[in-house]
Amino acid sequence: MYTVENITQFTRNVFLKMGCSEEYANIITEVFIAAELRGLSSHGMIRIKDYFQLWQAKRINTSPEVRIVHETPGTAVVDGDNAIGMIAAVKSMQVAIEKANIVGTGWVSTKNSNHFGIAGYYAMMALKHDMIGLCMTNANPLVAPTFSLTRLLGTNPVAVAIPAGNHHPFVADFATTPIARGKLAVAAKKGEKVPFGYVQDISGIPSDDPDILTKGGSMVTLGGDYEHGSHKGYCMSAIVDIFSAVLSGANFGPFVPPSVAYLPVLDEKVGKGTGHFFGAMRIDGFRPANEFKASMDKWIDTFKNAKPIPGQAEVIIPGEPERKNEERIKREGIHVIPPVVKELKEIANYLEIKFD
Amino acid sequence: MYTVENITQFTRNVFLKMGCSEEYANIITEVFIAAELRGLSSHGMIRIKDYFQLWQAKRINTSPEVRIVHETPGTAVVDGDNAIGMIAAVKSMQVAIEKANIVGTGWVSTKNSNHFGIAGYYAMMALKHDMIGLCMTNANPLVAPTFSLTRLLGTNPVAVAIPAGNHHPFVADFATTPIARGKLAVAAKKGEKVPFGYVQDISGIPSDDPDILTKGGSMVTLGGDYEHGSHKGYCMSAIVDIFSAVLSGANFGPFVPPSVAYLPVLDEKVGKGTGHFFGAMRIDGFRPANEFKASMDKWIDTFKNAKPIPGQAEVIIPGEPERKNEERIKREGIHVIPPVVKELKEIANYLEIKFD
Repeated sequence: MYTVENITQFTRNVFLKMGCSEEYANIITEVFIAAELRGLSSHGMIRIKDYFQLWQAKRINTSPEVRIVHETPGTAVVDGDNAIGMIAAVKSMQVAIEKANIVGTGWVSTKNSNHFGIAGYYAMMALKHDMIGLCMTNANPLVAPTFSLTRLLGTNPVAVAIPAGNHHPFVADFATTPIARGKLAVAAKKGEKVPFGYVQDISGIPSDDPDILTKGGSMVTLGGDYEHGSHKGYCMSAIVDIFSAVLSGANFGPFVPPSVAYLPVLDEKVGKGTGHFFGAMRIDGFRPANEFKASMDKWIDTFKNAKPIPGQAEVIIPGEPERKNEERIKREGIHVIPPVVKELKEIANYLEIKFD
Repeated sequence: MYTVENITQFTRNVFLKMGCSEEYANIITEVFIAAELRGLSSHGMIRIKDYFQLWQAKRINTSPEVRIVHETPGTAVVDGDNAIGMIAAVKSMQVAIEKANIVGTGWVSTKNSNHFGIAGYYAMMALKHDMIGLCMTNANPLVAPTFSLTRLLGTNPVAVAIPAGNHHPFVADFATTPIARGKLAVAAKKGEKVPFGYVQDISGIPSDDPDILTKGGSMVTLGGDYEHGSHKGYCMSAIVDIFSAVLSGANFGPFVPPSVAYLPVLDEKVGKGTGHFFGAMRIDGFRPANEFKASMDKWIDTFKNAKPIPGQAEVIIPGEPERKNEERIKREGIHVIPPVVKELKEIANYLEIKFD
C-alpha cells in the first residue's frame, strides 16, 4: 500500500523526467491520481508503462503547444500537438468552460491528442463553476458494431457530471460497451470464461472466451446483440467517434492510433491523432443554479429512496461508488499490484528517480 | 393503403378541428407523417386517438403560447404552455438553430410540454442548416433503473442527426431501453414470449412475459442486467431525464405525466409537464462544412464497406433503414392497420371530417 503523496510524487517525477514542464507534470499526475482514488486502477499506475514506452518510442509529445485552430464564441477545435492526452484534454475543457462563461455553453472538439485517462475527470472540471460537464473520446478499435465482423470502434466512453445541492454531484462515466476491456484481461489471467454478450469470435459468433481479442475476435457494443439493442450501443459509440474525430479532424473508427507502443503506427491516416469532445453548460444559462440544485437533490432522493430489488441495498446514483472509493482510498492508501510495482521500479531505475 | 396526401389531409383536419391554427396543425401533421414515412408507425396514426382523448379531457393545449422564459446567447428554457408536444418541440428547436447561427451552438431545455412523436424529426431540422441536431425527451415511467423494483424512468430516447456530403445523413434515433414499448404490445397480442433482457416482474426477477407491465413489472434499461451493463443504459436515460426536465423545470422521473388520457393525472408534481432537450451545433463552428462532409462520407464508406457477419448483407449506417422505408412508403402509400382505421373513422365522425 502506498500513500497518495508517495504515488503523486513518483508520477510527477516520471513526467518531469520525460521532459514535461511543472505545469504539465502536475496536470497529468492529477488525472492519474484521480483514477486511482476513484478505484479505476485500470487507468492508474498500470498505464504508466504504456506512456513511458510511447515516450521512449518518441510517439507522444511531452512539451506540446496546445492551441485553438478554429473557433466561434461557443465552439472551438483544439490541436493537441500530439500531447500526452491529459494535457490536451485539460486545456480543451478549460476552453469549453471559458466559452460557457460568456455565451452559456462551450463545446470543444480536439484532434492530434492521445490516450487521456478517465473521461470523468474532465467532465468534473465543470462542477466547481456550477456547470454541467461533458466529455467523450474515441479510442483504438477493439469493438465490432452490430453486424460487423471487423473492429471499427473503440470502447468510446461518455462522461457527464451534473452539480447537485446537498447531495454529491451526479457523475456518469461509462464505456459504450457492456464491460471495460480490463475485465476481459482479468478473466483471461484467471483462466475463467466470461458471460456471453461481451465478445464475438473471428467469425462473428458470440463467444465466452475472454482472450478472444488475441484470436481475431472483437468486443461488442452495449446491448450485446441486435435482439437486445446492440445497434443502440453502436449509435452511441458512433456519435462519440464522430463528435471527437470527424468534427475535429482526428483519426476516426478503425484509424485511431494505438495507445500502446507495442502496436505499430497505422499506415493509413484520415486525420491527426486521437480525438476528444468536451462540453460545458452553465446551469444558470437555463435556470438559477440554486433552483436547479434543489431540483437535482429531489431527483437524487427519489432514485435513492426507490425500493431496490431483493439482494440489493439501494438504487445507485451514478458516481456514488467512485466517490466512496475515493474516501476509502484517501484513508487507506493506494494499492498497486506486484507486477505493476515491478514495472514502476524499473521505470524509476531507468529515469533515476525514487520509487519505494 | 392510404396515399400520403390522404393521411396528411386527414391529420391536418383533426388538429384544425381540435382548435389548432393552420401553422400548428401543419407542424403536428408533418411530424406524424414523418413517423409513418420512416416506418415508425408506433408514433403515427396509432397515436391520433391518444391525442384526441387528451384534447377531449382538456389535458393538452391546442393553441399554446410557446415562449422563452430564460436565455443566454447560447441557451434557453422554453415554456411550452402545455402544448401538443410537436408545437413546443419545433419552436424550441428553431430557437436552438437561431442561437447556433449566432454563437456556434444553441441548447434549449423545454418544460410544460407533452408527448411529441419521433425525436429524430427535431434533430433532423438542423441538417438543412449544415448543423448537427440533437434531441432528447423524457417520458412517462415504464422503466426500472438498475437494482430498482420500481419504474422511475421513461424509454427516454436520444436522437442525433449529422450531415454528410454525397451520402445521406447519419440519423440515430433510439430509446435508452433494449426495445420500444410497442414491441412488447405486439408480442402480447400474438401470445408470444419475449427474450429475457427486456423486462422484469413485480419482484424484480427477469421475465419473458410481454404483458408484465400490466402486472406490476417494468421494462429495463439498455444492457438488460447489471452484468451486461444496464447501469450504462440507466446513466443515459438519467442524463436524458435531467437535461430534459431538471434543467427546464419540468416533471422528472416517476413524476412525468402520462401521455394517454386513460391514466389519471398524477397528484404529486415536481415541475411543469413533460420535458425535452434540443441542441444544434453549426458544423463550421468546428471546421469548414465541406471538409467535414467529405470526412463524414469517408466515415460512412468505412463502416458500410466493413465485412459483415455471416447472414447479414452489410453494416448498417444509423438512419439508413428509415430512409429506405421513406422511399418505399412514399411510393406505395401508408398502411394503417384495421383497428386503427376504425378508431380514425370514429374520430372523423365525431369531428365531422372525412376519412376514407
